[in-house]
Amino acid sequence: MPLYNIYHPVGAYTSSERAAFAKAIVDTYGTVIPRFYVGVLFHEIPKDDFYMGAVAKENFVRIRADHFARHQVGDNKDSGFGADQWMEKIEKAIAPFIRDRGFDWELHYGQTPRELWRVQGLKPPKANSEAERVWVKENRATPFED
Amino acid sequence: MPLYNIYHPVGAYTSSERAAFAKAIVDTYGTVIPRFYVGVLFHEIPKDDFYMGAVAKENFVRIRADHFARHQVGDNKDSGFGADQWMEKIEKAIAPFIRDRGFDWELHYGQTPRELWRVQGLKPPKANSEAERVWVKENRATPFED
Amino acid sequence: MPLYNIYHPVGAYTSSERAAFAKAIVDTYGTVIPRFYVGVLFHEIPKDDFYMGAVAKENFVRIRADHFARHQVGDNKDSGFGADQWMEKIEKAIAPFIRDRGFDWELHYGQTPRELWRVQGLKPPKANSEAERVWVKENRATPFED
Repeated sequence: MPLYNIYHPVGAYTSSERAAFAKAIVDTYGTVIPRFYVGVLFHEIPKDDFYMGAVAKENFVRIRADHFARHQVGDNKDSGFGADQWMEKIEKAIAPFIRDRGFDWELHYGQTPRELWRVQGLKPPKANSEAERVWVKENRATPFED
Repeated sequence: MPLYNIYHPVGAYTSSERAAFAKAIVDTYGTVIPRFYVGVLFHEIPKDDFYMGAVAKENFVRIRADHFARHQVGDNKDSGFGADQWMEKIEKAIAPFIRDRGFDWELHYGQTPRELWRVQGLKPPKANSEAERVWVKENRATPFED
Repeated sequence: MPLYNIYHPVGAYTSSERAAFAKAIVDTYGTVIPRFYVGVLFHEIPKDDFYMGAVAKENFVRIRADHFARHQVGDNKDSGFGADQWMEKIEKAIAPFIRDRGFDWELHYGQTPRELWRVQGLKPPKANSEAERVWVKENRATPFED
């Protein structure tokens, strides 16, 4: 569903902390979507490449993500969970890696069209379909009957 | 509001030029939104990672930004300033860092849902609300009554 | 039209392979849009910055692109080619660089407003206009009568 780009200060996280951070994000989706849908990319940004309000930052974590397996806002809302609920859940999940370490942070999501998304060349199964439940269970993209 | 990702050639800008570039972008928003809403990330892209029209580029600045504190296009337009007006203003602001230095360039914005955006874990105040004016004035995210 | 960000493993592609990959993407658009509209940026992501389903990956190619010169989904659809058709074409084009080399992969597009897009400071000509055909032919942004 989602792709996260996490822009963070140089040396902010060790390798195992990044793995734990990614896991905390994935876990927040529970079993609603396959775990392998959730991508998390970390990008180390030096202080003088990282500006918030035109101030160079070395203690800021800026997260930009896309949602496409489920939408939470607008006409094609099919999430089963509202925007506010989701934002509360994800903020709770990431707090140990950001707020609790004294970083400042900001997070926003884009919503992109499900129709323009492919996994291993396959058009992913419809939300809440039997085929999607199989993908959740097997945690990989396998061919299916539509 | 916005998050800017600026992809530029290796060595295109000194550290202080990047700071000035970020400031020029932030200044363009005036006092409509809090200054700290405006994020600018610089990414140095080597020539052979940077293709426009399948041609490797070492003189191109490619900007991709998101708007979410205000929308300028579509149903949820609440900007108070039109798309054309904005694009003219921002082009003027960035010209000294791009056009006037002989770089080629391209710029586009996405619009992402305000509902899927948090700053320091807070749901930002509504556009043009009293609470938003306080954030503009104090230039930081503080708890507020809805 | 599009901007592609390709996140790939360290050393996945040589410089000339990246050039060929970019060309395969551009060629897929044919002569519908100017070739110079198509941007492709490659980003090498080390294994422990690259998580899919919370698993660190060194054999995964994750592509995130935006479409804005043409839309394929929703109200402002003006593509002349459907989402499914497009996804099939682009998957075919990128397969030699991903699937056929044994990489896993995922691809999604955002759609961003045409109104918030400028090339060399110019508002690009309307889809399928005479001026756009001139840009296709000359393969560069030149001033035009609206």
